[in-house]
Amino acid sequence: MHEIGFIRDLAMVMIVAGATTILFQRLRQPVLLGYILAGVLIGPHTPGVLVADPRAIEDISNLGVVLLMFTLGLEFSVRKLRQVGVGVLVVAVAEVGLMLWIGFGIGELFGWKGMDSLFLGAIISLSSTMVATRMLSEGGQRHHPFAQLVVGLLVAEDMLAIIMLTLLTAVAIGGSVQAEAAFTLIGHLGLFVIVGMILGLLLLPRLVDYVAGFGRDETLLVSVLGICFGASLLAAWMGFSVALGAFLAGAIVAESRSVARVMHLVEPLRDMFAALFFVAIGLKIDPAMLLHYVVPALLIAGAVILGKTLACSVGIFAVGHDARTSLRAGLGMAQIGEFSFVIATLGLSLGVISDFIYPIAVAVSVVCMAVSPYLNRSADKLANGLTRITPRSARLLATSYSGWLANLKPVNENAALAAIFRRLLWHIGINVLLVVTLFMLGAYVNAHNWTWFSMVGIGRELRHTLIWATALFLSLPMLIAVYRKAEALGMLLAEIGISERFTGAYTQPMRNVLARIIPLVTLLALGVLVSALGSTILPPRGVALSLALLGVVLAVVMWRNLVQMHARLQAALKDTLDKPEHTP
Amino acid sequence: MHEIGFIRDLAMVMIVAGATTILFQRLRQPVLLGYILAGVLIGPHTPGVLVADPRAIEDISNLGVVLLMFTLGLEFSVRKLRQVGVGVLVVAVAEVGLMLWIGFGIGELFGWKGMDSLFLGAIISLSSTMVATRMLSEGGQRHHPFAQLVVGLLVAEDMLAIIMLTLLTAVAIGGSVQAEAAFTLIGHLGLFVIVGMILGLLLLPRLVDYVAGFGRDETLLVSVLGICFGASLLAAWMGFSVALGAFLAGAIVAESRSVARVMHLVEPLRDMFAALFFVAIGLKIDPAMLLHYVVPALLIAGAVILGKTLACSVGIFAVGHDARTSLRAGLGMAQIGEFSFVIATLGLSLGVISDFIYPIAVAVSVVCMAVSPYLNRSADKLANGLTRITPRSARLLATSYSGWLANLKPVNENAALAAIFRRLLWHIGINVLLVVTLFMLGAYVNAHNWTWFSMVGIGRELRHTLIWATALFLSLPMLIAVYRKAEALGMLLAEIGISERFTGAYTQPMRNVLARIIPLVTLLALGVLVSALGSTILPPRGVALSLALLGVVLAVVMWRNLVQMHARLQAALKDTLDKPEHTP
Repeated sequence: MHEIGFIRDLAMVMIVAGATTILFQRLRQPVLLGYILAGVLIGPHTPGVLVADPRAIEDISNLGVVLLMFTLGLEFSVRKLRQVGVGVLVVAVAEVGLMLWIGFGIGELFGWKGMDSLFLGAIISLSSTMVATRMLSEGGQRHHPFAQLVVGLLVAEDMLAIIMLTLLTAVAIGGSVQAEAAFTLIGHLGLFVIVGMILGLLLLPRLVDYVAGFGRDETLLVSVLGICFGASLLAAWMGFSVALGAFLAGAIVAESRSVARVMHLVEPLRDMFAALFFVAIGLKIDPAMLLHYVVPALLIAGAVILGKTLACSVGIFAVGHDARTSLRAGLGMAQIGEFSFVIATLGLSLGVISDFIYPIAVAVSVVCMAVSPYLNRSADKLANGLTRITPRSARLLATSYSGWLANLKPVNENAALAAIFRRLLWHIGINVLLVVTLFMLGAYVNAHNWTWFSMVGIGRELRHTLIWATALFLSLPMLIAVYRKAEALGMLLAEIGISERFTGAYTQPMRNVLARIIPLVTLLALGVLVSALGSTILPPRGVALSLALLGVVLAVVMWRNLVQMHARLQAALKDTLDKPEHTP
Repeated sequence: MHEIGFIRDLAMVMIVAGATTILFQRLRQPVLLGYILAGVLIGPHTPGVLVADPRAIEDISNLGVVLLMFTLGLEFSVRKLRQVGVGVLVVAVAEVGLMLWIGFGIGELFGWKGMDSLFLGAIISLSSTMVATRMLSEGGQRHHPFAQLVVGLLVAEDMLAIIMLTLLTAVAIGGSVQAEAAFTLIGHLGLFVIVGMILGLLLLPRLVDYVAGFGRDETLLVSVLGICFGASLLAAWMGFSVALGAFLAGAIVAESRSVARVMHLVEPLRDMFAALFFVAIGLKIDPAMLLHYVVPALLIAGAVILGKTLACSVGIFAVGHDARTSLRAGLGMAQIGEFSFVIATLGLSLGVISDFIYPIAVAVSVVCMAVSPYLNRSADKLANGLTRITPRSARLLATSYSGWLANLKPVNENAALAAIFRRLLWHIGINVLLVVTLFMLGAYVNAHNWTWFSMVGIGRELRHTLIWATALFLSLPMLIAVYRKAEALGMLLAEIGISERFTGAYTQPMRNVLARIIPLVTLLALGVLVSALGSTILPPRGVALSLALLGVVLAVVMWRNLVQMHARLQAALKDTLDKPEHTP
């Protein structure tokens, strides 16, 4: 009986998971629920202990978090987020905010300490992608209009979850909501996400496609796992959660042409470790403790189901879908799941929440998971019932609201102009972000690596000059792009904003003025921003001025080259993001 | 930087594995070799340590052994073994025996202690399925005739590996080659494998197909993993290695109709954990120690390459293939791999081999893996060269040997008779095994669970009577089947063996006598065997006799029912084993 210690526990868990998955599939219940219950049954708190020391399993289930987040990222993808639409995004933000507030309120009501209430809010704010998408595919409803909305909401929530995970870490480490520390962390986070995404998008999808070209599944899988774990490790080193790194890695790899193959290979791993993850959750639960908190758990579960259903239904209706679709979408979101456990685990591992939060989170999610198939199945009946009891006047109001919304949408020429307008703003935004990133990177290098500089004999001033000059000259293509887009924006605004009806003969000169003013103002604002950002690495004034002058001269002389360089960079990114759908 | 300890090391390993797999794929070198080298590079013995504590990785890489053996089992399958053919089986046994002897001899030559020499023999006796099959598929040679032979040899070696693993455990625990302990263990092993295979074949493929019917990959994967780990755990509890359990589970699941889907789902897991497994091997290696043992390692590697190539080539040629095919097959087998590490790890964990055996095993396998692609690529040149330097007479001899072998094969009527003859013997063998199994199970129950019997007030004699009677009556269908097959065998033998030419008028009576004698002798032998096996559970003589009489009466009265029962049982097994190839 050698080499058995660790394998024994794992084997127990896998056997139980295997039996559970068959049983729950047979009973048409959510399998995740089965995993958790099985974990409780074989856990150390139940008589007839089967797994005495859940430590090893927990180690492995942490792997589950990484792989789970990676596959969520794979399914996320930047393109999907763009497809979600602003309306759904707003609904998701409002709904998550509302649930946060409800959770916090319930915590306060019970007289829990502030951090417990805050984490409770976070725990109940995010629906379970795994539960919801399984329910949709099990019910064969993946292509219903309401399913598209649910998936959109889930994608938006994924993004909010990442933000929330990071903010909670900041808040928890800061001890309380210290504005300054939180802002620094958000700044770092932003830097990490933006630099990571841009560098990642430029390099990784190409790398993955190159490796996929070998045509060997093993090579593709192992290198993609290397990317996934590498990103997790990088995130952890920068002080963020491994979940964030894995998710970003997934979202980046999702832009490669081979994403379908990658998904296919990673799915079995995800399934195995997700099973371990959910069983491990059950292992941590003491049923006696659950019984002790049954009242708050049921109350919170009720709040989740009602709150999520209402918030999502009303929100979806408000952005212009019919009442039945809205209700079904709302019911589809009425549970919590994997993110709740990730957040609760985060709180526990940081030592900022009380012990009872975790079992409550589990109990609430178990109740929601158990209820959700019934909610989903009875959605039609519920909709019919609601229609019957709604007064005629309210129904008329609803119909006229939908009609009014439909009329609001811009049409024809205006719509085309609006699209151009949005694209220009989007381009300017991205380029400004890139410039900001470059200067912040410069500040970062300056702050961290200066022993290295002094070793090669570079003093403080020279170092500042070097970094600042590098950042400035690397920014040149982006600055020029901003100027050009701002020019285009100015012309567009001049065309739309200054109507011949009002200005008569002055129309053309006024248009010219507006078209010139906008790029100049933009450049000025950018200059101020850059000097503010680069204040820590600003060289002596004289040097800075001459460098800036040199920059302007270079920009004018090399204008065409720089424009081309920017175009190539943009094309590379665009090529990655606009690839055709899933061609293997 | 929370939850990081264990993930950090794993991430390091996955990143390095990812980079290695791309690099080695690019260089067209065996990726497994790359994993091992990468492990050495990031290991605790190399300056610039990246993974300081390889313990956690080793825990996980043990998982790799289970999954590796499971997939080997999946690819093994009883049907394939039957297709391999007796010739290849004999070659494999001879070759593995030779390599065992060579390894042992080399160990003795270096003056190592007996156990070290024995393990060295075992380590170098088994070729690497992973290296060999990859080489074949990378070279696009999977369907060459020589590739079929290599796969056949590998399948046969897999079986031998399982036997060897168990015997080594027995020998190591016994301290030396104690005949009695070894035989008891072999008995137990046989019981475990036979009962496991028969019960498994009756239940598990049906279960897997049932679960596959749900049409959900996750459910199928998790339940198959449950089976795999369950079997491993069971094997460990019975005192065998987890590798054996996992392999048997794989071989049994391989008989389900959904094996292609299962394989597809398990492969990514296998790839991930195999990468971890091989990197973990590298982690354990101290390059300084390797340098110290470079001479024996090179010598042994040479012995492996020469010995395996020669033994396999000559063997394959001897059973009737042409010289070129034989040489290519031999070259394809000229490496060692995963089994070597499993055996070395077994020796280490049992504490019976010296520390230097493991690094030597790794060094030898690394040399072989590095050389094998070149051997494979230059196989044709080698064959041409050999043909040129072989004297004409030797070539003539070889050609006439092949011709003589081709003439030896039985043809037409004789071939058909021989086939019937083999089938009858095979049926009798299986049924005898089943009877033996039942009685041994009875003895096992008797030996282990007797407190349970006395609790319900059953004394020693009554217990014996009960168990013996149960075993006897459960054996009835098998005993009758043996009798009927022996009858058929007798008639067949009488027909072939007693020729009218010699016996004249006495032919028919003598044939009748022979046809009767054979089943009676068989039954008698069976009776002796059963009483010997059941001696520990034999009830008082009077009871035993009356039970036996009752058995005979029952057999005669219920003859037809029992025959039908046996037929149904046989049909169920046959149905599992003779299913059409891979229909999903």
